Amino acid sequence: MRFSEEYYADQMKGINGSVIRDIFKLLGDPGMISFAGGNPSNNALEPEVVRCLVCEAIDRYGTNALQYGGTEGLPGLRKGIADYLSSTAGVRCTADNILPVQGSSQAFDLLLKALINPGDVILVESPTFLGAIQAMRIYKAQLVAMPMDEGGVIIEEVEKLVQKHHPKMMYIIPTFQNPTGRTLLLERRKALAEMAAKYGFVIAEDDPYRDLRYTGEALPSISSFDEEGWVVYMSSFSKYIAPGLRVGAAAVPHAGLLRKMVIGKQSSDVHSPILTQAIVELYLEKGLLPGHLDRICGEYRAQMEAMLEGFACFPEGTKHTVPQGGLFVWAELPEGMNATDALNRAVAQNVAFVPGTHFYPEGGHENTLRLNFSMQTLERIREGMERLGRAIKG
Amino acid sequence: MRFSEEYYADQMKGINGSVIRDIFKLLGDPGMISFAGGNPSNNALEPEVVRCLVCEAIDRYGTNALQYGGTEGLPGLRKGIADYLSSTAGVRCTADNILPVQGSSQAFDLLLKALINPGDVILVESPTFLGAIQAMRIYKAQLVAMPMDEGGVIIEEVEKLVQKHHPKMMYIIPTFQNPTGRTLLLERRKALAEMAAKYGFVIAEDDPYRDLRYTGEALPSISSFDEEGWVVYMSSFSKYIAPGLRVGAAAVPHAGLLRKMVIGKQSSDVHSPILTQAIVELYLEKGLLPGHLDRICGEYRAQMEAMLEGFACFPEGTKHTVPQGGLFVWAELPEGMNATDALNRAVAQNVAFVPGTHFYPEGGHENTLRLNFSMQTLERIREGMERLGRAIKG
Repeated sequence: MRFSEEYYADQMKGINGSVIRDIFKLLGDPGMISFAGGNPSNNALEPEVVRCLVCEAIDRYGTNALQYGGTEGLPGLRKGIADYLSSTAGVRCTADNILPVQGSSQAFDLLLKALINPGDVILVESPTFLGAIQAMRIYKAQLVAMPMDEGGVIIEEVEKLVQKHHPKMMYIIPTFQNPTGRTLLLERRKALAEMAAKYGFVIAEDDPYRDLRYTGEALPSISSFDEEGWVVYMSSFSKYIAPGLRVGAAAVPHAGLLRKMVIGKQSSDVHSPILTQAIVELYLEKGLLPGHLDRICGEYRAQMEAMLEGFACFPEGTKHTVPQGGLFVWAELPEGMNATDALNRAVAQNVAFVPGTHFYPEGGHENTLRLNFSMQTLERIREGMERLGRAIKG
Repeated sequence: MRFSEEYYADQMKGINGSVIRDIFKLLGDPGMISFAGGNPSNNALEPEVVRCLVCEAIDRYGTNALQYGGTEGLPGLRKGIADYLSSTAGVRCTADNILPVQGSSQAFDLLLKALINPGDVILVESPTFLGAIQAMRIYKAQLVAMPMDEGGVIIEEVEKLVQKHHPKMMYIIPTFQNPTGRTLLLERRKALAEMAAKYGFVIAEDDPYRDLRYTGEALPSISSFDEEGWVVYMSSFSKYIAPGLRVGAAAVPHAGLLRKMVIGKQSSDVHSPILTQAIVELYLEKGLLPGHLDRICGEYRAQMEAMLEGFACFPEGTKHTVPQGGLFVWAELPEGMNATDALNRAVAQNVAFVPGTHFYPEGGHENTLRLNFSMQTLERIREGMERLGRAIKG
């Protein structure tokens, strides 16, 4: 008898991987001007700094850098992250609330594992992050889409959905959202925290872009308004320092819930590598982050502006977001135009992006697209937007 | 309303973390002679080698060492692991079958995610690895214990259990098993591979100790006898190079199953850190492993012999295994003695171990204990076994 597909678990049967995987493969072609990914710029990465920090980490930890470590992570890293999140985002936490993990994706996976039974309702922005949609589907959650406007999810509509669906969780990216680049308004942040406590649901606040702000004032996190322990704040150093290190964190207000996430992590990968944790611990401890963010935000801002100017090449009637930070701009072509068709024509002209339909849990919205600007030079952004404008016009 | 425990998902409600966590905390006390852990010796770790390899990895990969990478892992690492596992253990694989992961624990977690529905039966050795028991319980598998003798699981008994329970999977540690130190006989390895194909169940072959052999001849893996693609072989560099790097691998014969595991990993941590993967890639590529294993096996062998001699201090009628490798010795005290009571007396004398009952999915076996020798000097092993003998005698 041979192994066959009928052996797959139910939770994985309908899950076939990122639908934009094939688009991402285009990234590998140097001739392609790709607006499809979400990687930080290679200019934002600092191999020589990391080399020095690894050496220092080995000096600091010696053989402990290579031994088994605690699932809860390095104490110094937990403290560094707690200080960072509380001072910059107003997250209510001390080191004891912090679980360092492998990117904020793992924080969300562990939170789902700790809380979600099949059929539980999770409210999500519509559109939202593809990776999160897949993660929630593996736990067989039922996704309910929250309507949005330029200021993020619309509170009155959200409350109606809460009353109707009794969600166990809300998944939300409040700052420079992926894919739209939108930022949730201050008063809505407060309202969501209060709504969670009123009705009793957990808010998974995914905030990995927050400190990539190019204009406007920083807003406090939803977590900062959380009086009753309902908001789990998820952060990541992938966009701030380096994604290849795979260091992120959850700030979990409830000790019992943190413990369940620790057990989930113990059972899946025991602990995160010591060296990568120590690199971020030292990066924070030495105060390298603010200066680094200043530098990369200046570069990203120029890239975003070049992209925004490039919309002049797009068909009349195209709408697009004007984000205050992050890595993405979202566009809506005139009604009736199809971004997937446009992608085929664009690829023939060596430019790529992600059709927006993939970010909607319910599909549709064929006239939308997501554009990333962080991986291309100013010149290539201008050239790419011109080509893309032509391709969309057909 | 405040967050409360009733929100936990069903799969996590009964899961309270490693029951031996409190015992492991004793490891931190330098006065304690601990036989409780399973860590490699600090002498076996090479911070200076790792320092050089990280620098070389940064030279090789530049900014790619810090960028997002593929979920499938570094191509050079996949090839290095495939060559290593096929040449040393006869595992049937090429680079395309290899999924580098965060220790073999993550390989098993992803395999469970890909295959196990609640209630599915998994056959397990009895006793078996605690971490695996917890992982299987989170997926709500039904564990069925396979009887063992000195040569591992007893084939005739296993076949009866297969016919009765129609398992979806078997979890087995064939070489220097944790906790017993036993090694599955050659003909039984072949028989299990044939049984899996005859009845149609997946064998999760967990083999992280295999190359820590001190005496006797290496045996081919169960995977080496797998003609039909039923054996997923799981390996780890935690015991060979360094656990803090969190690099292990699954060798998965069926491409569709490997893809499901990749999707599971994508959804939980996107990919493993590039630097830790690159360290192991270079370690294998430079051929450092055979010489390193020779050195550490010589030291471990001496430690194991010191421990085995120490059983002279134990009560008459104590039985113990005489492993050919690995990190553990297993002992059975005379009927009626209780290892948990003995642990309390032992800790008062500054020596610790793990009572064997924790390794049995069904509990019981109160007169058994697991002893680890890798973390103590010869002198401390001798001293510890003397104290332990006294404590057991009461």
